Amino acid sequence: MSRRSTRLEDIAALAGVSISTASRALNDSPAVNSRTKQLIWKLAKEHDYPFRRYMPAGPIGATGTIALVVPRPQGREGQLDDPFFLELFAGISDAARDRGCDLLVSHFAPTSFEDLSAAMTTSRADGVIFLGQSSLHPAFNLLAQSGARFAVWGAQLPEQGYCSVGSDNLAGGRRATLHLARLGRKRIVFLGDTEAPEVQQRVRGYLDGLEQAGLANDPALLVPAHFTVESSEAAVDALLARGERFDGIVAASDLIALGAIRSLLHAGLAVPDDVSVIGYDDVPFARYSRPALTTINQDTARAGRLLVSKLLDTGAGSDMRSERLQTELIVRESCGG
Amino acid sequence: MSRRSTRLEDIAALAGVSISTASRALNDSPAVNSRTKQLIWKLAKEHDYPFRRYMPAGPIGATGTIALVVPRPQGREGQLDDPFFLELFAGISDAARDRGCDLLVSHFAPTSFEDLSAAMTTSRADGVIFLGQSSLHPAFNLLAQSGARFAVWGAQLPEQGYCSVGSDNLAGGRRATLHLARLGRKRIVFLGDTEAPEVQQRVRGYLDGLEQAGLANDPALLVPAHFTVESSEAAVDALLARGERFDGIVAASDLIALGAIRSLLHAGLAVPDDVSVIGYDDVPFARYSRPALTTINQDTARAGRLLVSKLLDTGAGSDMRSERLQTELIVRESCGG
Repeated sequence: MSRRSTRLEDIAALAGVSISTASRALNDSPAVNSRTKQLIWKLAKEHDYPFRRYMPAGPIGATGTIALVVPRPQGREGQLDDPFFLELFAGISDAARDRGCDLLVSHFAPTSFEDLSAAMTTSRADGVIFLGQSSLHPAFNLLAQSGARFAVWGAQLPEQGYCSVGSDNLAGGRRATLHLARLGRKRIVFLGDTEAPEVQQRVRGYLDGLEQAGLANDPALLVPAHFTVESSEAAVDALLARGERFDGIVAASDLIALGAIRSLLHAGLAVPDDVSVIGYDDVPFARYSRPALTTINQDTARAGRLLVSKLLDTGAGSDMRSERLQTELIVRESCGG
Repeated sequence: MSRRSTRLEDIAALAGVSISTASRALNDSPAVNSRTKQLIWKLAKEHDYPFRRYMPAGPIGATGTIALVVPRPQGREGQLDDPFFLELFAGISDAARDRGCDLLVSHFAPTSFEDLSAAMTTSRADGVIFLGQSSLHPAFNLLAQSGARFAVWGAQLPEQGYCSVGSDNLAGGRRATLHLARLGRKRIVFLGDTEAPEVQQRVRGYLDGLEQAGLANDPALLVPAHFTVESSEAAVDALLARGERFDGIVAASDLIALGAIRSLLHAGLAVPDDVSVIGYDDVPFARYSRPALTTINQDTARAGRLLVSKLLDTGAGSDMRSERLQTELIVRESCGG
């Protein structure tokens, strides 16, 4: 099974250009004219030279491929079925394009360390962005020990050995809760998927906010709901059916806020007059919904740029610092005030 | 530069499995257990066997990679900045995942035949989906003559030699216009990017609809706007400023409808009481906007499945039939009636 692979020198010689020109052409550099590029691409293809597939060793340059892998979350089917994740995808895609990178969206939805490891092994990319943490925190820690080049969109957790980019969920949850408290709301519900690490941090922020505002914390007001309009609507329907009294809802996402509002309006309650509802994410439709959603903005464009630059600008093996992004309170109509 | 590539037989022998098991493992078949798969993936990687990169010759199987390339449209910056394209992306991504395919989103935004050709040459995929036609119809015809395996989201045009999947824009434009006419609207504006092939067909449908309803066609009511809220809002502001009278708007997209509604409300007009507005696409926020958008639904899940199956299920060189998808009128609030 011995073989002699085609080298960059061979491609350059065949094309009659310098090695550095050949390299630039293979990296689709704007410094090389398109006729030369196409000749070199053609030669590379004919001779099976692995261009634009694996980057050279050492610090990674400006051109390559980033793989995007979406771990399967509990209780959800589709991968990109939440508008927030589509926005985050668009942010990553824009950032990759700005860096001259292709984005490989894997069909694979890992649920274990073995899966993560396989995703890294089989990926034909310079690095992998995992979109969401699911329950894989310990698995990501193991993966980082193997020197794999990856970054994770998600919460920053205790004893974390890998690089995450995510918003400051604790501050976001607190900010949302304090906004409702400042508007005089006394019995504030938290509505969301309390098993997701990011949501657990928002719950802690909610509890902090209640305490800071001098409001009692009633466990009956911590209400689980998946990240869909239907799940959230059903959860609030059930809350109303059992006669629970509340005048505010902190929702873990904008979709969840929409579902809550549908349930409240259907029950004949007014939003925000009877119940204030605040969302999370600030997806594009938040400004167009009725009432327009007051929400906590997560900056998906910035998140995309950071995730991409973590993979491209950091030398192999060196430290990749996690990032906790500031959120912003966007006041519209759904809370009143 | 002679060489002997690693063959599938070699990988199978090294792993101690049959050739068909090795092949199934490389295709990530559920029929092979994950330990065997990982052994074979590892061997393939070590021996540079090109698994899951290029499919075998002949009819294409169920596993591989599809590249997604977005031609640069006139007057737009971002690639995936319209919620309709994000939905279409999600439809393609879901369909690819269901077929066990990865999706390679290219950073490259072609504007010429040379660009399209380069996109095909450099793509490490079994086939390419071009998302949008821009002004590249003749270039796509040339590309098809070279036997390239690709499909295009867009309009079906005269003398078309390539495979397109798109909605029946003529019928959609006519349906939207007739809906307003049935509600008694007499002076109906068409608002959209009239240089885009899909929109040109919707304009023809609009003109057909006017004629069918016995309404006059006033060229002053054919108003150009790009696919953004801002562009559409400015176009309707200008229309109102020059004192044009109209009682209905057929918008070329839901974003354009939103911009129109913003302008009308800002001018103190009521929607739908003074002016009926109908959108196009039925993006997720259409149901949540105020007023909720009446619109023409394009089935992005079906479009995704068709685009993917065109590439995977059609033998190389054989005919790929274009598809024109039926649209659906979704009646909500923005037209009244």
